[in-house]
Amino acid sequence: MKIAPLSGFPEWLPQDRIVEDRILDALRRTFELHGFSGIETRAVEPLDQLLRKGETSKEIYVLSRLQGGPSQDSEMGLHFDLTVPLARYVLEHAGKLDFPFKRYQMQKVWRGERPQDGRFREFVQADVDVVGEQTLPFHNEVELPLVMVDALSGLPIPRVVVRASNRKIAQGFYEAVGIEDVGETLRIVDKLDKIGPAAVAETLVEKAGTTPQQADLALRLADVSGSDASVADRVRELGQRSDLLEEGLDELVRLVEGANALIPGSVVADLKIARGLDYYTGSVYESVLVGHEDLGSICSGGRYDSLVSDGKRTYPGVGLSIGVSRLVSRLIGKATVSATRKVPTCVLIAVNDEGARAAATATAMKLRRRGIPTDVSPTAAKFGKQIKFADRRGIPFVWFSTDEGEQVKDIRTGEQVEADPDAWVPESSDYFPQLKETK
Amino acid sequence: MKIAPLSGFPEWLPQDRIVEDRILDALRRTFELHGFSGIETRAVEPLDQLLRKGETSKEIYVLSRLQGGPSQDSEMGLHFDLTVPLARYVLEHAGKLDFPFKRYQMQKVWRGERPQDGRFREFVQADVDVVGEQTLPFHNEVELPLVMVDALSGLPIPRVVVRASNRKIAQGFYEAVGIEDVGETLRIVDKLDKIGPAAVAETLVEKAGTTPQQADLALRLADVSGSDASVADRVRELGQRSDLLEEGLDELVRLVEGANALIPGSVVADLKIARGLDYYTGSVYESVLVGHEDLGSICSGGRYDSLVSDGKRTYPGVGLSIGVSRLVSRLIGKATVSATRKVPTCVLIAVNDEGARAAATATAMKLRRRGIPTDVSPTAAKFGKQIKFADRRGIPFVWFSTDEGEQVKDIRTGEQVEADPDAWVPESSDYFPQLKETK
Repeated sequence: MKIAPLSGFPEWLPQDRIVEDRILDALRRTFELHGFSGIETRAVEPLDQLLRKGETSKEIYVLSRLQGGPSQDSEMGLHFDLTVPLARYVLEHAGKLDFPFKRYQMQKVWRGERPQDGRFREFVQADVDVVGEQTLPFHNEVELPLVMVDALSGLPIPRVVVRASNRKIAQGFYEAVGIEDVGETLRIVDKLDKIGPAAVAETLVEKAGTTPQQADLALRLADVSGSDASVADRVRELGQRSDLLEEGLDELVRLVEGANALIPGSVVADLKIARGLDYYTGSVYESVLVGHEDLGSICSGGRYDSLVSDGKRTYPGVGLSIGVSRLVSRLIGKATVSATRKVPTCVLIAVNDEGARAAATATAMKLRRRGIPTDVSPTAAKFGKQIKFADRRGIPFVWFSTDEGEQVKDIRTGEQVEADPDAWVPESSDYFPQLKETK
Repeated sequence: MKIAPLSGFPEWLPQDRIVEDRILDALRRTFELHGFSGIETRAVEPLDQLLRKGETSKEIYVLSRLQGGPSQDSEMGLHFDLTVPLARYVLEHAGKLDFPFKRYQMQKVWRGERPQDGRFREFVQADVDVVGEQTLPFHNEVELPLVMVDALSGLPIPRVVVRASNRKIAQGFYEAVGIEDVGETLRIVDKLDKIGPAAVAETLVEKAGTTPQQADLALRLADVSGSDASVADRVRELGQRSDLLEEGLDELVRLVEGANALIPGSVVADLKIARGLDYYTGSVYESVLVGHEDLGSICSGGRYDSLVSDGKRTYPGVGLSIGVSRLVSRLIGKATVSATRKVPTCVLIAVNDEGARAAATATAMKLRRRGIPTDVSPTAAKFGKQIKFADRRGIPFVWFSTDEGEQVKDIRTGEQVEADPDAWVPESSDYFPQLKETK
């Protein structure tokens, strides 16, 4: 009997899972260093909440109980991102939260899409958002992408560059040139990298009802990019004027200049960044892994003013989301990163014979108590076989109880020394498996 | 608009989530110190795999795509435990795993049951299992419950005691007294704590087809408990004999004596522990939190010989599972444990005016780089208000840039001292929030 993997539902082998785990650890540590609280939300949301975003409706997995009759369960679906659940969580718990509420969230999400390279049906996202009560100052739009840059720069992975635009620029510009369906225009321009400028121009005329001249101007706007205030000048050279456009340009320049003053090279302005989602109202972000641009954005988000509202109060926010599975899948698939060993174990205690197992286990307990991951050989096989057991898994040390006392062997160098289980320590890099760049 | 919580789907506030998070961290650290590899499996399994266990079929959540036509999706359900997924993972990846395969897994599981105190529809389990290829020596049955005792004893929670029995005892004993439906008898005896001995005796006669005398003997067996070899004698005094029974008694004594020699008081023999599941073939375990026995078992499991088999090879295993959500829900609900503060932040950088925000952020970056969780005040409000912001969240330090230089104030004591952002450090217990027993 052969069990086939389920397409779109990635699973890692133990050694690859270490890569994912260490990346999640590093993200979490950075998020907490920046003062974000970790929360988890339930996997399910009421269907009407999930459908608020409209265009993703076909991707939702709906739940039903195998033997259950009609019940509220059939009105629930698995969340497809962590933003809709955040909005619901904030409204549900608003009275018990302190605002501005800074939260991170690292969970699986599910989309019933056709699986393809880097696109899964089940995947892990890592989100950070700041949500204010009624107001949220602009400086958060400068700081949030830097949290992600900081989080990703501590890892042995290629450099990440954030590309940013501002929804006010697109909206102000489109309105100034007379484009009526701003939402549809944004969604079409969002496909620029995928389908190219000619197809975008054509689709704008066909589906968004623009004139060819309007489509051309939208494309010329999308062509502007840069890392300083000159970006605003180049947009102004396109000859359109509106208060909203000016406000957006001012914010974009403040974002790019503010971010690069704190972390040089972290953020570039790129006006083709549109983001398909309706709810963004200010800065929008995408990010690429340098050298892996074909993977698409691995970290995206933006500012939203009214995603979260209970009718009386609104909770504006800004946030970004890392596609952790997409990132990990690429790192593992291209073997650019790997773990220094396949298991957590640092020391294997050899067992002379089954009668000595309790003593071996007692030695293991002493090492574990001092934070050294230790396993006891599963059988009292010949020492050569026990050493091979360690070697196959990359366990660096084997511990022997000999007539001359306790000894530990570094099987990478062959060096064997006397050792006291209450005192011996490995190099700090040997305690737990580490990540290493492999190319 | 008021959003009601969804019954059976627990969610924690940020400060309570710290409790869950620290418990998961401690479990994970102990599991890795014992050499277990962390894996995650996808949330879904084919329905036929989920239905193999039989009696849980009505609890399964089945997936369908909202707008999808008939497809393989409808043959998938959310996993209701982490054992069935482990069995599938081992078979699917057997060629790439090293045996004995020691894995831990901490994930959410879903059951469409009626929610009640301590029973949820979505909850976190933390499992450890050792899976061998063809064989798995008995000593694993002694070691596995000790991993859980070790993991839980490092936490500021009440003591955990493992209660163990052995499936061979029940099966050998029942067969010796002439009970034919061993599986059904086990499931009924498993309800002893819930429904009491009289109801168990009655149900055994009615549903398992035993005679009243057989039912009485089953209850007398269930009444035996103890912490040493005398347990075996008390069972033998009931006058039944079989090779399987003797094998089970021998294993149970080895388990209790072996475990208590390594960690005194960790495991007691309790022959009423039956476990309802068919697949156990040796030791079975339940565990109670001392003082919270009403909560039921928070950590259960056992030895299984043929759960995992591809027809040619079998992969016997032994494992236990902690009901993390049940544990956390009780700790939070009874307020026995709490976090030392509500947010990760250790230091709040005060902002004199918006023009000084970039400098404040630069100071924050210096502290974060040295591992100190730091937030920057969201507004340049009056200092009193900024200090109140820290106080509400339990942030212990507020950092000021004054005319006399940089200073840091411990707002718990009021002490304010000069400080260098490149050198100042808090007490080690102040870096991140800790858990504390609150009663």
